[in-house]
Amino acid sequence: MIISTNKRLSKFKLLPIALSILPFTATANSNVVHDAEYYILEAQNGKVWEVEDKDLDAKLAELAEEYGTPPNIVHFMWDDQPMGAIGVPAIQQSRGYDTPNLNQMADEGMLFSRMYTEPSCTPTRAAALTGQHPIRNGMYRVGFPVEYHGISEESVTTANILSDAGYATGFFGKAHLGDIEESYMHNQGFDVAFAAIYNQVASIWNEQGESANATIGFKDSVLAPDPYHLDDTYMSDDIVLFYEGHKGQQAKEWCGVSLDCYNQFDQEAERRALEFIETNAAAKQPFYVAWWPQWVSFIPEQQKSSRQRGIVGDAYQNNLDPSAGALMDTLKKAGIEENTLVIAMADNGPMTHNPPAGLGMGEGLFRGGKGDFTEGGVRVTAQAWWPGMIEPGQTVGDIIHVTDLYTTFARLGNATENIPDDRVIDGIDQTSLLINGDTHGRRDYVHIYSGDKLGATVKKHYKMHWINTDPTAASGIGSTYYDLLNDPREQSPLLVNMVMHGNSFARMRERHEMMMQKYPNKEAGQGPAYTGMELLNPDTKEISEPLIFIE
Amino acid sequence: MIISTNKRLSKFKLLPIALSILPFTATANSNVVHDAEYYILEAQNGKVWEVEDKDLDAKLAELAEEYGTPPNIVHFMWDDQPMGAIGVPAIQQSRGYDTPNLNQMADEGMLFSRMYTEPSCTPTRAAALTGQHPIRNGMYRVGFPVEYHGISEESVTTANILSDAGYATGFFGKAHLGDIEESYMHNQGFDVAFAAIYNQVASIWNEQGESANATIGFKDSVLAPDPYHLDDTYMSDDIVLFYEGHKGQQAKEWCGVSLDCYNQFDQEAERRALEFIETNAAAKQPFYVAWWPQWVSFIPEQQKSSRQRGIVGDAYQNNLDPSAGALMDTLKKAGIEENTLVIAMADNGPMTHNPPAGLGMGEGLFRGGKGDFTEGGVRVTAQAWWPGMIEPGQTVGDIIHVTDLYTTFARLGNATENIPDDRVIDGIDQTSLLINGDTHGRRDYVHIYSGDKLGATVKKHYKMHWINTDPTAASGIGSTYYDLLNDPREQSPLLVNMVMHGNSFARMRERHEMMMQKYPNKEAGQGPAYTGMELLNPDTKEISEPLIFIE
Repeated sequence: MIISTNKRLSKFKLLPIALSILPFTATANSNVVHDAEYYILEAQNGKVWEVEDKDLDAKLAELAEEYGTPPNIVHFMWDDQPMGAIGVPAIQQSRGYDTPNLNQMADEGMLFSRMYTEPSCTPTRAAALTGQHPIRNGMYRVGFPVEYHGISEESVTTANILSDAGYATGFFGKAHLGDIEESYMHNQGFDVAFAAIYNQVASIWNEQGESANATIGFKDSVLAPDPYHLDDTYMSDDIVLFYEGHKGQQAKEWCGVSLDCYNQFDQEAERRALEFIETNAAAKQPFYVAWWPQWVSFIPEQQKSSRQRGIVGDAYQNNLDPSAGALMDTLKKAGIEENTLVIAMADNGPMTHNPPAGLGMGEGLFRGGKGDFTEGGVRVTAQAWWPGMIEPGQTVGDIIHVTDLYTTFARLGNATENIPDDRVIDGIDQTSLLINGDTHGRRDYVHIYSGDKLGATVKKHYKMHWINTDPTAASGIGSTYYDLLNDPREQSPLLVNMVMHGNSFARMRERHEMMMQKYPNKEAGQGPAYTGMELLNPDTKEISEPLIFIE
Repeated sequence: MIISTNKRLSKFKLLPIALSILPFTATANSNVVHDAEYYILEAQNGKVWEVEDKDLDAKLAELAEEYGTPPNIVHFMWDDQPMGAIGVPAIQQSRGYDTPNLNQMADEGMLFSRMYTEPSCTPTRAAALTGQHPIRNGMYRVGFPVEYHGISEESVTTANILSDAGYATGFFGKAHLGDIEESYMHNQGFDVAFAAIYNQVASIWNEQGESANATIGFKDSVLAPDPYHLDDTYMSDDIVLFYEGHKGQQAKEWCGVSLDCYNQFDQEAERRALEFIETNAAAKQPFYVAWWPQWVSFIPEQQKSSRQRGIVGDAYQNNLDPSAGALMDTLKKAGIEENTLVIAMADNGPMTHNPPAGLGMGEGLFRGGKGDFTEGGVRVTAQAWWPGMIEPGQTVGDIIHVTDLYTTFARLGNATENIPDDRVIDGIDQTSLLINGDTHGRRDYVHIYSGDKLGATVKKHYKMHWINTDPTAASGIGSTYYDLLNDPREQSPLLVNMVMHGNSFARMRERHEMMMQKYPNKEAGQGPAYTGMELLNPDTKEISEPLIFIE
C-alpha cells in the first residue's frame, strides 16, 4: 500500500490505485483487508497514525511488562438502549431509572456519543465477533426458534484470533447467532460457552408468558382449538434455549424451556463469567470474555424496582447494573483492573415499535429504534473502562462502529496477524481513540445496513438515506440527505445541500460496492438445528430437522 | 389554613374547606394565595415542610450573619434550549457545540431535569417576574413591534418585592414584556434597566436582515413596489428596540434600529450587569439581577465557531457561555459567590417550527419545541449554582416551574410578606429543593397553558393533554393521557390507564378553575407605545399611537 501524505491528492487518482493493489498488499501494520473508505483516510492520515502507533505500542509494551500478559478484554453487551441511556443522569431522571455502577464506570472511563451498531441483535453480535457488516457473512436476520441457520464455520471470530494468540476465551450470555452446530459459541473459537441460542422471547415461551401473549400465540398447546389447523411444527415446544459447551466437545442443553430456566440463566451466566475471570486472573492467563446478558424478561415482575416500572428500566436498574458492579469488583479484587479493557454497551437502539409504551421502551434523543437505520436504531449507549490507560471523564465525539471492537481487540491482544486476509474487515483499529482520547478516532464514516440492503451512509455528521419512499421527502433523486448536528432526528432532508455533497456520498457507495465485487458476500451456515448437542427432551429431535433435506 | 397531617384525609372533604378559607387566611409561613393543588400537597406534607423550613431559616440566618446581607440573586436566562442542552456532554457532542463555563456551573451545582416554563418567551418572562401563569395577567402572547400592550402596572414583580425588602434591583437584557410605558422594567420595580423591548427578530429589522428575509418581508422600504399597497403603518421602521432607564425617571431610547445596535446590545448589557454586581458587592448591598441575554442573531455569522455552525450552537458556544464564565468570575472576584444564588436557564424549548434545520434549531429528548405544550416546549435546560449552599453534582428529578423562582427568591430575600394577597400566585417556595436537594421539591404538578387555553396538566410523571384534535389519538373523551417516564415523547396515548387516573386529573382542573373564578384573571396593560421615553427618531411618534384612540 502506497501511503500518500499529500492531503490534496485527488481522490479520483487515488481510487484506481487503491483498488488495484488492495487485495494483494497489507497496510503498514497488518494484513487486514479494509473497506475502500478506510484507505482514503489512511492515505491522508497514515503518517500521523504511524507515529501514534509507535507510542501506543510502547505504552502497551510497558503495561505488558508490568502485568506479564497483554491486556484482558471484557465485552459486556446488553440489549436495546440508545445513546445517553447510561452515564447521563439528566436522561435517566427523565426515564425513571438509575444505574449507579454503570454510571460510575462511564465517569471513570470514556463515554462514546457515536458508537454505531447494526440495527438489531443478531447482526450486531455477528458484527462484533467477525469485524464485518453482516451482509458479508449472511448474518443480517434476527433469529427465532427454529431457524436452521447461523454463523458459519468459515467465520473467524474474535475468539478464534485471540485464542490463537494465547488468550483464554469465554462466552457467557445471549449469543443469538444461530441454532446449528457450527454456530455454537464453543465451535466459534471460545474455550467455554454458556449461551442462550435465541433472545428474550424465550421468557414468554411457556404457559405464563403465553397467557399474556395468547392473541399472538407462541404455543399451540395452550391456544383454543383451531379447526383450520394443519401443521404442528409451525410452532413447537420442543426447542432448545440454552446450552453449555467446551471447545472440541459436544454441547449440552441446559435447564430446559421454562420461565424458571429463563430466570436462572442470567444469574448462572454471571456466576460463570466472574469465575472464569477469577480463575484466569489467578493463573496470570490473559483472557477475552464476551459477557452478553439478556436480563429483560417480557413477563413483567409484579413488584417494581424502578420509578419507570417498565420492564426495561426495571431490568437494567435491578439486574444489569449490579452485574456491572460485580464485574468491576471482581477485576479490582483480582488486581487486574488496570490491565483489563471493559467495553460496556447496548447492541442496538431501543425497541420502539412495540406498544404499549408502558414497557419502558421508547425513543431517546434520536428518531427510531431497533430495526431502523435512523440514528435511533444504531447509535447506542457505550463506554470503555480501563483505569490507568483511559483518561477518566471523557465524552468523545468520534465515530466508532461495533466492528471496530474486532480489530481493536486484535491489536491489543497481539492478534492482528491472525485476522484472515481473504475477506473485507469493516472494523478499524481504534486503540488510539481509547488511549489518546477524543478526536483520535480513525473512522469518519459508517455504512448502515437494513437487512441485506444498504439503508444509509454516514460521513462526518452528514447522512444519506439510500432508502426513502416518502413521496414528500425530496427523494425524487433516489435518496435523502441530513445534517445530524442540526437535525439529529433526521426529519428535514436538505435538497440544496445535497447538491454539494451528493456525489461524495455516491462515490463512497460505488467504492464500497466495488470492494464487494472483489470480495463477494458469503452465505450464513444452514442445516439441521441442535446437532452436536446432548438434548434434555427427546422430542426436540423432530423439530431440529428441516425435513425437506432428510433422505 | 388548617393543616391536616392525616395523609388519608379525603380530598373530597378537604376541597370545600380549603376553597372556603383560602382567600382569607395565610399559610403557616406567608400570606401567599396559592393555586388549589398546592393546598392538597400542603395538607399532606405541611408538617414535614414546617420542620424543614425551620432548619432552612437557621441555615440562611447563619449565612446572613457571615455576609451581613441576605443572599444575592442572579437570574440568568436565555432563549430556546431543551432539557439536556447544558451540562450534558453526550448531548452537546451530538449537537456539535460546547459550553464549558455553563457545564462547570452545572457540575458545581444542581441540574434540573424537570424545570418547566411557559411555552414561549413573553409568557415565561412574565411568569418569572410575577409568579403567575400569564393567563392570570394577560401576558400570554409573544410581543412583536408595535404591540400597544405589555405587563400591567398592577403587576407586583420580583423586583418590586425585593426592592421593598432592601435589595438593589437591576434588569439587563431582553425583557420582551411590552412596549407601553408601564411595562418598562424600571417601571416594574427595577432600580435600573437596560432592556430590549422585543426579541431576536430585531436582528433582521434592517437592510442586511431584510435581504435574507425579503420573501417574508419585514420592511416595505426595501421591497419591490406593491401596486396593491394601501397601508404604510402595517410595518414601520420607526420603532424602538432598546432603552435604558432608572426607577422614577423617563426612559431613553438606546442606540437605534440597526444591526450594529443589535450586535452591541448584549455586550453592553453584560458590561452593565457585571458593573452592577461589582458596585453592589463593594457596597455590601444585597442585589437581585435579571440578566436575560438574547445573543442569537438571526443573521448568521460568516465565520463559524461551533462544529454545529447553526446560529444556535454558534451563539451559545461563542457568546452565551463566556458570559456565564464572566458572571462566575465576577462573583468570585467580589468574594460573594457563596452568598449568591445563580439560576441559569432557558426560557422555553428549542425552536423547531422554523426550517431549515440547519440553524441549529431542533428537538431534544422530548417532542415539540417553543410554542408547544408537549414536554419539548416547556421543559428546559436549567441549573442552580450556589457554592457552599447547594451540594455539587446533583441532577434532580423534582418538578420545578419558572413561577417558583418568584416565591423562592422572595423567601431568600425575606420578602415573602411583600407578595400581594389579592391574587393567586402559582409559584411555590422551592428553597428546600435547592438546599436539601433531590426529592425535596414541593410541587408534583404543573398546568401548561397554550396561549389562553389550558393545554395540558402534569401530575407526577403522568400528563393529560386537554387539547387533542387528532381523530386517531383516542381523544374521543376529550383528552389524551401519557406516561412521561415510559413515553417521554408523548406519542402513545394510554386509554385504559386513563380510566384509572382520568378523574384525578379532572378534579385538578376543576379545582384550578374554581380558584380562577374566585380570583378572576386580569388583562395586560394597553395603550400607546413608547410614551415616557426620550426618542432618538422623531418619526417614531407616529407608529407609537394606536390612532383609533386619538381624539
